[in-house]
Amino acid sequence: MNSQQDSLSTTFAALADPTRRAILARLSRGSATVSELAAPFAMSGPAVSKHLRVLERARLITRGREAQWRPCQLEAGPLREVADWTAAYRRFWEKSFDRLDGYLEELQATRREAAGKEKGKARAKKR
Amino acid sequence: MNSQQDSLSTTFAALADPTRRAILARLSRGSATVSELAAPFAMSGPAVSKHLRVLERARLITRGREAQWRPCQLEAGPLREVADWTAAYRRFWEKSFDRLDGYLEELQATRREAAGKEKGKARAKKR
Repeated sequence: MNSQQDSLSTTFAALADPTRRAILARLSRGSATVSELAAPFAMSGPAVSKHLRVLERARLITRGREAQWRPCQLEAGPLREVADWTAAYRRFWEKSFDRLDGYLEELQATRREAAGKEKGKARAKKR
Repeated sequence: MNSQQDSLSTTFAALADPTRRAILARLSRGSATVSELAAPFAMSGPAVSKHLRVLERARLITRGREAQWRPCQLEAGPLREVADWTAAYRRFWEKSFDRLDGYLEELQATRREAAGKEKGKARAKKR
C-alpha cells in the first residue's frame, strides 16, 4: 500500500458520513466556527468537534489559530484526488449511457416503422 | 438523511479500503471469479469474499448466477454518484490552480525583467 492509497482510504472514510458531508457543504459557502457549524444540526459542540477532527485528519479542513474561535476552512485537495480516482471509471457509466442511447434509437426506429405501416394501411383503405 | 445520502455513505465506506479499490480496478479490465480476484492479493477465498460482499451491498459489483463460478462484474453507477458529488467542489481546486498560475506568471515576469536588466548591463559594458 503506498501513501496515495492510504490518503484515499482516509478521505473516503471521512466522507462516509452525511453530517461530515453537510459540514463540507456548509464550508463551501465560507469558513465557519464550531458553534456556527453545530447550529443547523441540533448537535452538541463536542459531537461536532469529533466530526471536525475526522475531517481535519483527512486534510479536508484546516482550522484557524485563534484559540477561542478556530474557524474551519474547506481544503479541496483530497476531493480532487477522489475526482481523479473516479475519472478512471468514467468510460463505464458513459458506456452504459451509450447502450441506453442505442436502445432508444432502436425503439424510435421500431415506432417509426410501425407508424409507416399504419399510414400504409390507412392509404390502402382510402383507395 | 435521504436515501441518496445513505447510498453515498455506503459507497464511500466501501471505497475506504485499498484492497476493495484494487478489486474494482481489476474488474474494470473485465469480469472475474473469486479465485481470479484472490490470486494477486495472496489472500484467502473467504477474505476476498468478505470484501466482495461489501462491494455488492454498495452496488459497486454484481455477481453472476452460476452457482460455482459467480463471476463478478463492475457496476459504475455509484462511482458516477461520487463523481457528481465531487463536481460541486471542483471550483475550489480550480481556484487554487488559478492562484498558482497567477504566481507563476508573476515569477516569469520578474525573471524576464531581471534578464532584461542583465542584458542592459552587458550592453553597457561592451560600449
